Amino acid sequence: MSDALNGVLSRIDGNLEQSLERLFAFLRIPSVSTDPAFKGECRRAAQWAADQLTGIGFEARVADTKGHPMVVAHRKPQGATRHVLFYGHYDVQPPDPLDLWTSPPFEPRLADEPSGKRIVGRGSSDDKGQLMTFVEAARAWIEAAGELPVAVTVLLEGEEESGSPSLKPFFDANREELRADIALVCDTNQWDAKTPAITTRLRGLVGEEITVTCASRDLHSGMYGGPAANPIRVLANLIAGLHDADGRVTVPGFYEGVEELDPAVKAQWDALGFNESAFLGEVGLSSSIGEKGRGVLEQIWARPTCEINGIFGGYTGEGFKTVIPSQASAKISFRLVGKQDPHKIRTAFRGLLRERLPENAQISFQEHGASPALELPGDSPDLAAAAAALGDEWGRPALLMGSGGSIPIVGAFKSELGMDTLLVGFALDDDRIHSPNEKYELSSFHKGIRSWARILARLAA
Amino acid sequence: MSDALNGVLSRIDGNLEQSLERLFAFLRIPSVSTDPAFKGECRRAAQWAADQLTGIGFEARVADTKGHPMVVAHRKPQGATRHVLFYGHYDVQPPDPLDLWTSPPFEPRLADEPSGKRIVGRGSSDDKGQLMTFVEAARAWIEAAGELPVAVTVLLEGEEESGSPSLKPFFDANREELRADIALVCDTNQWDAKTPAITTRLRGLVGEEITVTCASRDLHSGMYGGPAANPIRVLANLIAGLHDADGRVTVPGFYEGVEELDPAVKAQWDALGFNESAFLGEVGLSSSIGEKGRGVLEQIWARPTCEINGIFGGYTGEGFKTVIPSQASAKISFRLVGKQDPHKIRTAFRGLLRERLPENAQISFQEHGASPALELPGDSPDLAAAAAALGDEWGRPALLMGSGGSIPIVGAFKSELGMDTLLVGFALDDDRIHSPNEKYELSSFHKGIRSWARILARLAA
Repeated sequence: MSDALNGVLSRIDGNLEQSLERLFAFLRIPSVSTDPAFKGECRRAAQWAADQLTGIGFEARVADTKGHPMVVAHRKPQGATRHVLFYGHYDVQPPDPLDLWTSPPFEPRLADEPSGKRIVGRGSSDDKGQLMTFVEAARAWIEAAGELPVAVTVLLEGEEESGSPSLKPFFDANREELRADIALVCDTNQWDAKTPAITTRLRGLVGEEITVTCASRDLHSGMYGGPAANPIRVLANLIAGLHDADGRVTVPGFYEGVEELDPAVKAQWDALGFNESAFLGEVGLSSSIGEKGRGVLEQIWARPTCEINGIFGGYTGEGFKTVIPSQASAKISFRLVGKQDPHKIRTAFRGLLRERLPENAQISFQEHGASPALELPGDSPDLAAAAAALGDEWGRPALLMGSGGSIPIVGAFKSELGMDTLLVGFALDDDRIHSPNEKYELSSFHKGIRSWARILARLAA
Repeated sequence: MSDALNGVLSRIDGNLEQSLERLFAFLRIPSVSTDPAFKGECRRAAQWAADQLTGIGFEARVADTKGHPMVVAHRKPQGATRHVLFYGHYDVQPPDPLDLWTSPPFEPRLADEPSGKRIVGRGSSDDKGQLMTFVEAARAWIEAAGELPVAVTVLLEGEEESGSPSLKPFFDANREELRADIALVCDTNQWDAKTPAITTRLRGLVGEEITVTCASRDLHSGMYGGPAANPIRVLANLIAGLHDADGRVTVPGFYEGVEELDPAVKAQWDALGFNESAFLGEVGLSSSIGEKGRGVLEQIWARPTCEINGIFGGYTGEGFKTVIPSQASAKISFRLVGKQDPHKIRTAFRGLLRERLPENAQISFQEHGASPALELPGDSPDLAAAAAALGDEWGRPALLMGSGGSIPIVGAFKSELGMDTLLVGFALDDDRIHSPNEKYELSSFHKGIRSWARILARLAA
């Protein structure tokens, strides 16, 4: 370890109390982005973050958008050969229901737990606590070593909890200013309290709404029941045919671009001792209905799916009506992995349903988004650097995780700015983000700062 | 034809104008039962009808209920060997949308059409015009022949268009007073303008609401999509399995008690020249999806069905949510014929679904009514009498029709009072009941009165 990094880490340890005070000040600002009543507080949080960055020598500004402002800050040391873009969000979820909090959500406190000290308050984990790990690491580099080891651009938004409507226009208007070698995001979890992780896979998504129409109007089931085609029955048959007996999706060509797991990654996942029964049992399920012969982690992190997210047709109120409806609809989505092509899949899906449509039925489709899966290449030097840094800090290798969901910012970095993203986070599954009594372990905060300090050093090397 | 009947028919012809004036007075009372604003008008209509019956020598009363009142009237000639209960309803559907009426709904008028004169106004067909055919026939018998040929009880209700909530309590409280040899109802259609009909078959109904539950809460399809059971998919599979490839219902024992059509009835139906394509084409359908090898009329009038009347689960609003819902529900009904047992079918249906339920799913059932099919025995002497009377009047045999729907009063007469019902009506398919510009052909009214005069004579014989 270089002397410089050594000094940085010492400074972090010695100044933890001040770092925590700064986080608490940030947490006291109720920057709830979804509630217009907190518009001023969101601006205050943005300004606070910009001031922090200015205070450690960044060139920072609060940039207006149609919604809540962005914070953009740069510090580009002379001679730095690498340039990272760090992204976080200063907005938080509404604190409701308030009566379930054991202390006021915007009065952060340090609680003593048998497992150690924890920071309690809205935003402590998601995402103020996490984003401050990076800011404090940058501060320590600048204060202890005199400079950052890489050029850093910081982008903080205030609309992450309300769908990020201003992000794309902001990218469009500031493309050159925001471009860097790689994006860093601190908004994800570790595997567990002892095992650091980098999320390297995010599934893509294709959303479709389908509507089946049979008769030209709703019919009385007494007058027409028997001969009249029923769109609910047609829809049920179409849905029932979307999976085969082994749980595989029947859309032609669906598995094109889906690759088998790299054996090294598979071995790492197998070694986790992931408890499938506990994971499913926690939500009342007893077994996986996914693709036969594959484990639950692989099904969620590395396999594509087809899900029915909603269905409706006919009479759905209280009581009963003997109607044969004219129409029935379903919302269906596909989670994609690897190199699956969202547009090809949409076309093949529509073709299959049209082909299987019986007489007396028509079908129409409405598009609800398409995004490909994202995967950080396994041979990325930045991935190797970050994994090594995490290994140094935590004393065990960083797990390369998947995430079954999507993180829109990562897709936008790729599609709008051509950048890959390193998703490194220190949150834990039990942090209760979006819920009352949100917390962040003090050790997550402390070791998170140290981790970023190490990652910056490794990325510069 | 007896001299007495001859005189009665002459009187009907000679007094048609006065009969029509009385009907118009009745139609001018806006007795909309579903709208509390018209409560007083409903009572006024009941009183008007009771006064009419009193005026021709019935002992009539307006009987209070928790809702709109009943009219009950008796005239029992000495020595009459038969006793009929005539049922009709004095309430009407709301007239909305008013702007589609070509003349005010409660200002009845006689319109000249190429096909003849027609009575236009709310209730002209359903059911004031129809019920007055019977009352005017009774009047003609009393005025021309001095007495009715059979004992007659008249029961008129004012809640038929709002679900008849007072009927069962009223039956319970007045069982003995209402019992007769047979019930007569004038609230159905002819086959066409020239072909009289008696509806002898009504399908029964079993209603079920089923709810499939998988996970104990809604899940994020990114976090759980793949391994997690989806109740919409489970429900779709269950629904898809309710019919076989030939359109038959797969519930075990479902066809027990379903008899093949009597060859004579089948021959009569086949001779109707029913245009299946036109019937289905009018509602945008091109072919029957019912049981293979059976015609559309048979499918509706004489075959049982299973219909999905509603389905809902997951996200059904605007846009998209990537949820795997905890629950999905469907409303399912069976139309029954012959001697099918509603309770056996409910039990077998539930058993089948429980048996087919996959792992990770639970199912619950909610009952929504059960009524057996009703069929007037083909060898009923009263049926033969009414058919002969209609044949005399219309110059062609009365068609013995089925009805795909249910008429609750008929079931109540059977179950509560042990009576069969003769459903004889003179309405036509294009009478626009429940719609703007409801009408009743003057010929329907005139020949309807004559038909009842003849039926009463035949029933007495």
